[in-house]
Amino acid sequence: MRFDLSGQIHGFAGQLLRVNLSSGKISKEPLDLDVARRLLGGKGYAAYVLYNELRPGIDPLGPENKLVFMTGPLTGTPAPLGNRFCVCTKSPLTGAWLDSHCGGSWGPELKWAGYDGVIVEGVASRPVYVSVDNEDVRINDASWLWGSDTFSTERILKDRHGSRGIPRVAGIGPAGEKLALVASVISEVRAAGRGGAGAVMGSKKLKAIVVRGDAKKPEDLVADPKAFGDAVKKAHGKTGEDFRTSVRKRGGLVIMGTANIVDGINEAGGWPTRNFQTGMFEHVLDVDGMVFTQKLWVPPESPGRRPCWNCTILCAHLGIVKEGRWAGTVTEGPEYETLWAYGPQCGVGSREAIARADYLSDYYGIDTISVGNTIGFLMECYEKGLISREETDGLDLRFGNADAMVEAVEKTGQLSGNLGRLIAMGSKKAAEKIGSGSDRFAIHVKGMEFPAYEPRAGQGMGLAYAKSDRGACHLRPWPAGAEMLGWDGKDPRTTEGKAKWIKDNTEDVASAFDSSGLCLFISFAINADDVYDMLAPATGFSGFTNAEFKRIGERINNLTRAFNVREGFSRKDDTLPYRQLNEPLPVGPCKGAVVRLDEMLPEYYLFCGWDSEGRPTAAKLKELGLDFAIG
Amino acid sequence: MRFDLSGQIHGFAGQLLRVNLSSGKISKEPLDLDVARRLLGGKGYAAYVLYNELRPGIDPLGPENKLVFMTGPLTGTPAPLGNRFCVCTKSPLTGAWLDSHCGGSWGPELKWAGYDGVIVEGVASRPVYVSVDNEDVRINDASWLWGSDTFSTERILKDRHGSRGIPRVAGIGPAGEKLALVASVISEVRAAGRGGAGAVMGSKKLKAIVVRGDAKKPEDLVADPKAFGDAVKKAHGKTGEDFRTSVRKRGGLVIMGTANIVDGINEAGGWPTRNFQTGMFEHVLDVDGMVFTQKLWVPPESPGRRPCWNCTILCAHLGIVKEGRWAGTVTEGPEYETLWAYGPQCGVGSREAIARADYLSDYYGIDTISVGNTIGFLMECYEKGLISREETDGLDLRFGNADAMVEAVEKTGQLSGNLGRLIAMGSKKAAEKIGSGSDRFAIHVKGMEFPAYEPRAGQGMGLAYAKSDRGACHLRPWPAGAEMLGWDGKDPRTTEGKAKWIKDNTEDVASAFDSSGLCLFISFAINADDVYDMLAPATGFSGFTNAEFKRIGERINNLTRAFNVREGFSRKDDTLPYRQLNEPLPVGPCKGAVVRLDEMLPEYYLFCGWDSEGRPTAAKLKELGLDFAIG
Repeated sequence: MRFDLSGQIHGFAGQLLRVNLSSGKISKEPLDLDVARRLLGGKGYAAYVLYNELRPGIDPLGPENKLVFMTGPLTGTPAPLGNRFCVCTKSPLTGAWLDSHCGGSWGPELKWAGYDGVIVEGVASRPVYVSVDNEDVRINDASWLWGSDTFSTERILKDRHGSRGIPRVAGIGPAGEKLALVASVISEVRAAGRGGAGAVMGSKKLKAIVVRGDAKKPEDLVADPKAFGDAVKKAHGKTGEDFRTSVRKRGGLVIMGTANIVDGINEAGGWPTRNFQTGMFEHVLDVDGMVFTQKLWVPPESPGRRPCWNCTILCAHLGIVKEGRWAGTVTEGPEYETLWAYGPQCGVGSREAIARADYLSDYYGIDTISVGNTIGFLMECYEKGLISREETDGLDLRFGNADAMVEAVEKTGQLSGNLGRLIAMGSKKAAEKIGSGSDRFAIHVKGMEFPAYEPRAGQGMGLAYAKSDRGACHLRPWPAGAEMLGWDGKDPRTTEGKAKWIKDNTEDVASAFDSSGLCLFISFAINADDVYDMLAPATGFSGFTNAEFKRIGERINNLTRAFNVREGFSRKDDTLPYRQLNEPLPVGPCKGAVVRLDEMLPEYYLFCGWDSEGRPTAAKLKELGLDFAIG
Repeated sequence: MRFDLSGQIHGFAGQLLRVNLSSGKISKEPLDLDVARRLLGGKGYAAYVLYNELRPGIDPLGPENKLVFMTGPLTGTPAPLGNRFCVCTKSPLTGAWLDSHCGGSWGPELKWAGYDGVIVEGVASRPVYVSVDNEDVRINDASWLWGSDTFSTERILKDRHGSRGIPRVAGIGPAGEKLALVASVISEVRAAGRGGAGAVMGSKKLKAIVVRGDAKKPEDLVADPKAFGDAVKKAHGKTGEDFRTSVRKRGGLVIMGTANIVDGINEAGGWPTRNFQTGMFEHVLDVDGMVFTQKLWVPPESPGRRPCWNCTILCAHLGIVKEGRWAGTVTEGPEYETLWAYGPQCGVGSREAIARADYLSDYYGIDTISVGNTIGFLMECYEKGLISREETDGLDLRFGNADAMVEAVEKTGQLSGNLGRLIAMGSKKAAEKIGSGSDRFAIHVKGMEFPAYEPRAGQGMGLAYAKSDRGACHLRPWPAGAEMLGWDGKDPRTTEGKAKWIKDNTEDVASAFDSSGLCLFISFAINADDVYDMLAPATGFSGFTNAEFKRIGERINNLTRAFNVREGFSRKDDTLPYRQLNEPLPVGPCKGAVVRLDEMLPEYYLFCGWDSEGRPTAAKLKELGLDFAIG
């Protein structure tokens, strides 16, 4: 498929950086506009690069794996919430496709420096960091910085490169260096958290990428400023009205951040507690959004909140622990997922302990979801006598032991002791090591740990987890609002109609949003049509139709699926843990439910145009213009 | 005394900021050039302000106290090491005069913004921070930031004010907020550490001062560029030759930082160990400069070192703990004083524990010298049974217990438990609380704890501690090089000639250096004449002679002495602890010695032109042009 492209590039910077750490070669290559038309940026473009450049079966932590840091066409433009970048690679946690997304200011800065993305190849002979200052791109020695926590890494590198405004840093902490499979990439105290992209950076001995750019201005990125301005105005209008995103109306995200949904998810029986043994937490009122707002976070109106670049919905919250053992701890968050992972998942109702664990996770660079989930899993193992106190390095790892939970997080960040190393490998590999049937309650898909939604309290969520390209992910799509919070009135107990709903109305849309460079949270207020209305005048793509934009999501999902199929994944991997498929949920409106995956998965494959093993058919790939991915 | 002043101001910015936190009034006032001629900047100018504006007998933590942040005329000029500012106030730790100095980049930035200093008055009704961006000066709400550690404070405020280059922050952590008498002011991971200036900031509810400036350029600050350039070149030549400061010759400060003197001081029997019970540490080789260089710090040639602005001797070292319990800890240091305070003073030979304690001290904003000294004091109390394990909150506070030492530092930063609150009041007040004769081995002068030199191993050091304006200080003057390291061949055991040497050749010179804005460490390589050669063309003061410059130090020392006399200090306070005066030093070349203070102090007073009670005579004050200070 070829599009008619005008000479001038808009939306995109038009250029990619390629950095080979083995040879030290740095090259700049034009963005392939044909690919950009078909897959946009972000995850979509990166999938094209990695599908074509990675040999199947490679070791994710070996020299052949690559890392793609990628922005979307709306990243760094004046589009509200246009601040995302993603890190894509073959995941060391799952062995599958991985895209992990992050806000802040790094993505826009990269775009302004003149690049849509950075492709990192090879392995450096000693630790390095890459610095990008507009045209000036270098590989710098970082032996001296190796071992440093992420806060110090940012501080020190900003200071070194900050003569003309504050540069932005994306980097790893000690956990990534030591190849923890749950290591994240941290930027501006935000995380591209999931799937172990931090370990891939560590394997390449890449400590950080520092970016400063002013070669391009946000306004100048846009092809048709008038039409774009109108669409942005419309988007602002909608975000200003929605009960979740409106600052004026003191929306849920504004006041309580992502934690605004805690009470609702708990009431739906969908708040996984004590390693998913139940779905309601008895201490929910100690850790819900309102109590964090009242007791830990700076006030909603405070200038202390530090939103991502050009964010208008302000979900980010700054927390300061004022009293007790962890007084002085400052954390950006905790987010909904994090407060769940270190809260109910571990049976912990202490806000201060959760905040401390959140801080430590950022400090060492580890994924809060996978780490908290795995600690909860090990707590269940410990209480069941499957691991001894010796194996926990002396910690009394019972549910509810807040001190032990915090200590376990710290050990994970350091990979210290038996316990730290165990958690750092994630729940799947930990269960393999422990044996004794513990894999029945290791709560993951394809090796990636579940986040904070119990799928027995929402059948669509079960399908979403099972089939997701990167493993158990709550964002591709996020059916919880409709199924558990009643926002769009979907019955959580039924499987009927869920396959088509998941595929058409949510999953494809989520991928299209992600590849645009917008934060997914704007989808609370605007829909795919609104995104198209910004994208078309931003890029100036001629003949770029709304229908074509909507196909992009489907195209991306087929391409990452093809990537996984080539790696050996099939229907057997699109499944859920024993617990979710066999043990009835003990509480809540969906009491008694298990996930009836078999009622949805075959139907889902059908809607996708995939065969009974979950493989995209040649016809489907051809239809989507992905001929190169026909096996 | 009046000087003939030309209209154009050089060296100085020519303007002071005055910020009244009670009324919210911000005013700018011209620098008094007559005062600047007589006392230069920094400590000297601040002493003039505080002597004239503070009523005697006020509560240091009450609304009447003031804080003066002051630079010197060479701060921010191209003079090497011209980067210092000081924080001056009435000390809450001692009740006496306090000037506490700091490097980094904050001082130069303030000068470039157009101000020589900031005078802070009153008390804010709720937490605030002051922002200075050239002409634009504001008092901003900081309620949201209250409770934050110093690293987060810097990070968050830099991000908020960093659109045009990196602003510089000087602020306090939780300890200052909670009025710990050992609270420091932290800027760029450097400290204006001693005497509790951080508590004064806390009492005023002033979290930080953020500064960004480019109204003035370093070169433009200088009156006579040619003569100044020649003097700077000469200074560079000398620092490039000296065995301590030369980068080319891999000088001691360059390779090992201030820790380069550890072995020498220990061999002199002057390295206080286990609360000054002895003067040599058996684990010295685990914590000397060479082993820190080999095991903890980034290499001397590394780009990771972060010197102060325009520093050419590079004493600052970046330390990263790579293994063990505190792996991932990043610290700038530890300096000689810090590694002593948390090392031999507590009987601790673990580099990692010392580095961790250093980090925590910066994090919470507490003075490493006073805190480590006080912990050592309490360890002796604990071993002697004067405080119980209950009073240490369960810590086994024996000498050598590294974990307990680190925990005690953390508790101090938080003022948590009985132990944290006890340490936070410093050794003098802690001894008063403990009683039982513990004051005999509470090692302080005027309430300020000794640093890392045992005066029984150097009589001049004993006099220096006893008479110093701010309490036991090793820098006004620093006789250790001459007496203990043999650099200028002074017999440590004799008292003969020490009074005059301390006064004329070291003390007055140190004060003149300090008030110039230069870092004292350049005095290893250049002398007062060299400073004069830079100062005269920098300021362009007409008729400013070398002789006059040398008098400035004496003038400053008389003015701070007059300040203390007015506060009720006299000869009885110019003394040393019982231990130093009565218990013979058990080891080393000075084995058997006590400090024979009575052989030096009266003579010292005589050379100073002070009466037998240590009060400056009217004649002396008149001679120095300090008529206003005649009691």
